[in-house]
Amino acid sequence: MKNDIVWDQEVDVLIVGSGFAGLSAAIEAKSRYNNVMIIEKMKAAGGNSIISDGGIAAPNTHLQNQKNIADSKELMYQDMIKAGLGYNNPILLKTLVEHAKEAFKWTIDSLEVPYLDRVDIFGGHSVARCYTPVGISGGIIIRKMIKKINELCIPIKYSHYFQSIFVNDQHVVIGAVILKDYNYKTQQGTTMKIKVNKGIILASGGYGADVSFRQIQNPRLTSDISTTNKPFATAEVLKSALSIGAGSVQLSHIQLGAWSSPDEKGFGHGPLFADYILFQYGVIIDPITGKRFINELIDRKQSADALLNIGHPCIGIADDEAVKTSGWDISKAVNKNVVVKFDSLKQIAEHYDIPFDPLRTTIKRYNNFVKIRHDKDFQKPIVELAKPIETKPYYVMRLWPKVHFTMGGLLINEKANVLDFNGNIIKNLYAAGEVVGGVHGASRLGSCSITECIVFGRIAGQNI
Amino acid sequence: MKNDIVWDQEVDVLIVGSGFAGLSAAIEAKSRYNNVMIIEKMKAAGGNSIISDGGIAAPNTHLQNQKNIADSKELMYQDMIKAGLGYNNPILLKTLVEHAKEAFKWTIDSLEVPYLDRVDIFGGHSVARCYTPVGISGGIIIRKMIKKINELCIPIKYSHYFQSIFVNDQHVVIGAVILKDYNYKTQQGTTMKIKVNKGIILASGGYGADVSFRQIQNPRLTSDISTTNKPFATAEVLKSALSIGAGSVQLSHIQLGAWSSPDEKGFGHGPLFADYILFQYGVIIDPITGKRFINELIDRKQSADALLNIGHPCIGIADDEAVKTSGWDISKAVNKNVVVKFDSLKQIAEHYDIPFDPLRTTIKRYNNFVKIRHDKDFQKPIVELAKPIETKPYYVMRLWPKVHFTMGGLLINEKANVLDFNGNIIKNLYAAGEVVGGVHGASRLGSCSITECIVFGRIAGQNI
Repeated sequence: MKNDIVWDQEVDVLIVGSGFAGLSAAIEAKSRYNNVMIIEKMKAAGGNSIISDGGIAAPNTHLQNQKNIADSKELMYQDMIKAGLGYNNPILLKTLVEHAKEAFKWTIDSLEVPYLDRVDIFGGHSVARCYTPVGISGGIIIRKMIKKINELCIPIKYSHYFQSIFVNDQHVVIGAVILKDYNYKTQQGTTMKIKVNKGIILASGGYGADVSFRQIQNPRLTSDISTTNKPFATAEVLKSALSIGAGSVQLSHIQLGAWSSPDEKGFGHGPLFADYILFQYGVIIDPITGKRFINELIDRKQSADALLNIGHPCIGIADDEAVKTSGWDISKAVNKNVVVKFDSLKQIAEHYDIPFDPLRTTIKRYNNFVKIRHDKDFQKPIVELAKPIETKPYYVMRLWPKVHFTMGGLLINEKANVLDFNGNIIKNLYAAGEVVGGVHGASRLGSCSITECIVFGRIAGQNI
Repeated sequence: MKNDIVWDQEVDVLIVGSGFAGLSAAIEAKSRYNNVMIIEKMKAAGGNSIISDGGIAAPNTHLQNQKNIADSKELMYQDMIKAGLGYNNPILLKTLVEHAKEAFKWTIDSLEVPYLDRVDIFGGHSVARCYTPVGISGGIIIRKMIKKINELCIPIKYSHYFQSIFVNDQHVVIGAVILKDYNYKTQQGTTMKIKVNKGIILASGGYGADVSFRQIQNPRLTSDISTTNKPFATAEVLKSALSIGAGSVQLSHIQLGAWSSPDEKGFGHGPLFADYILFQYGVIIDPITGKRFINELIDRKQSADALLNIGHPCIGIADDEAVKTSGWDISKAVNKNVVVKFDSLKQIAEHYDIPFDPLRTTIKRYNNFVKIRHDKDFQKPIVELAKPIETKPYYVMRLWPKVHFTMGGLLINEKANVLDFNGNIIKNLYAAGEVVGGVHGASRLGSCSITECIVFGRIAGQNI
């Protein structure tokens, strides 16, 4: 039957998605095949990659050497295993740390991405190993990749929606159904069948914005939970691969940030206040009880879970002294009313409908913990510069988690082949980037996603 | 093409598996269809159900009334949500608590299962709501179910291995490929194709013993990690459903017990010592460092994860005073050398190759915490009867987690229909019991699995 298909077009390599992984794959694949085509359902390239900060993590780099930072592949591996609670696929993770430096170097040597002359450390990394492009935006890297794609004359077909995969009787991938002229709003387009000679590389990103799909795995992630992702970060490509028997890994591993505000869209300006001021020097209060319920400095996963368990946005309170101590400029968050100033706890209680007496008692109790340098209730480490919360104005932010990243996805091997649940290769099907599962385990560390996209995107393009 | 299939046999309803879920489904299905058939890959009925203790949990029962235990569906729901960390599918969980009492009553009224005149409380339940059959074995319930199955003249075909599902062009399930005369050792059998008029009910259990499948979801669960399950608790039926597009839920949610010993097979005798004596009155030591690393009374998931992170079996030490205080008889564990007696810490250090000085310091430090009723290192609650560990003989058990239950599995609705990832019903395909995912979320409470099997087994049989 499959021999009867009337194909509308024929390519060697079809790449689905135009973020870091897809573009990296295309550049590599083009060195061996003439007819490489990228499809992208939106009207522009870059997907979620373009809204990231562009930070990439790698060990043993020239920038680390210049700054005398001792690092190793093994150390990065261990950091990621620790954050991932040991759920990381060891073979994929080894592949990542093995090729991380080379991927970073490739963006400099081959793509000419300019980086800031600094090395940053983010939560969970043992040493500074994160590099940020000049401009502090993933868009910088995407622009350089597109430049290379254009030089190589690789077509990017926009408004092309990937619908399903054709396999033959031997379960080899032979083509795909695409909707061209895809209208994102009406979800309509013109069906076309593309014959694929060498294979398909799925690089379609995560499912952070796919409410129904993520809710199957974590029922609390209803539409009441927003996301830092673009709204098009949905699961249809992942599902099309699962439906032809691809294995899935840890689909319920969905990372939320607890630093986010329900009073702004996307990532926003609140997280800077929350992460650098509130969690360190302030308290988080359940407005129903007026009490604390957590060590404010606990990890991202535990704090987001605690908020979800509470079931409604909670109230973070820090004081003027904390803002001054931190040295951060929070004017953007204040101007957008994401962080609100108050002159007294009484006003805060009234504004957020918090019972005043418990609130006052809670703050008093916490201030005492700060004085004795021991949080008897939640064992929060009292940081060196912490002072009692008592200097007006008070700065207040509502906190409610947002979905940030999906660690789960397709099962692949170290060559980026997609595998079925028996560990067998599905011939001519490859995947790279956030659509893949298992690299990060239970929780992803900052700057490791771009490394993953470029490392495995290139591997997919080289192995197809 | 599918019209060309030459069928070897035809049934109305095919049920895969002969544990609690499968047998319950068969009994219900038989009330509406004449031609119901159960297949079982092993040579006897009962699967993992038969080795359980037979405990079933339900709220608002006559036994609770007799003993003036106030309980409610809502309270059981909340207990399971708390244990499941909110990952539980709310609709399935509501269905479970709604039908739990009725399922328990059905085992008494219709199956004539005799229960002990007691109501037990297990970890995580707010009140006593667990009922255990006379004989304290799941085998008692299985025997009564088989009696009913025989009365109803429902055939159970042993040594019949379920291989794959036939769907037609409309994606309706129309039959199955079975290996009859299946030899468990050689994994060979004679292929036969069974046409199914009304549907298939998958009740094939969990994948606790399927090393390669569970390792895809949690790479640490290598063959070094044993299981309390029977070795036939594997994923082939689950995989056959996934391969035709069934949705999966939380496959990485795999429950391990931290109370188990690497020095005996299966569940064994160690857990009683660990759960009732060691964790409460003793300490767990990493033999490499001679130090504690955890609050010994932390929950099952966290303690098992901590052991896996350590990466090798650890050493649990309690003393004679603890054993006497507990009142438990641990002679079976001692006779089997799962729990070993020593006259001094020095001997323990030598036997298990633990550095002696750190060990002595650790015990001394812990004993001081017991005296001041405050564990400054790991915040373990010091139970009322706890005393310093200093009375010989010391009782020592090696601890290494075993896989106990798989919370993940197929995506179903409250009618036990199997769904695809878009939430659409796969026509004529049903599932119940441990093969289903989402009821228990991140962690299952004791006695709630049998409730699930019977509730959803009956629902599947009633709705097919």
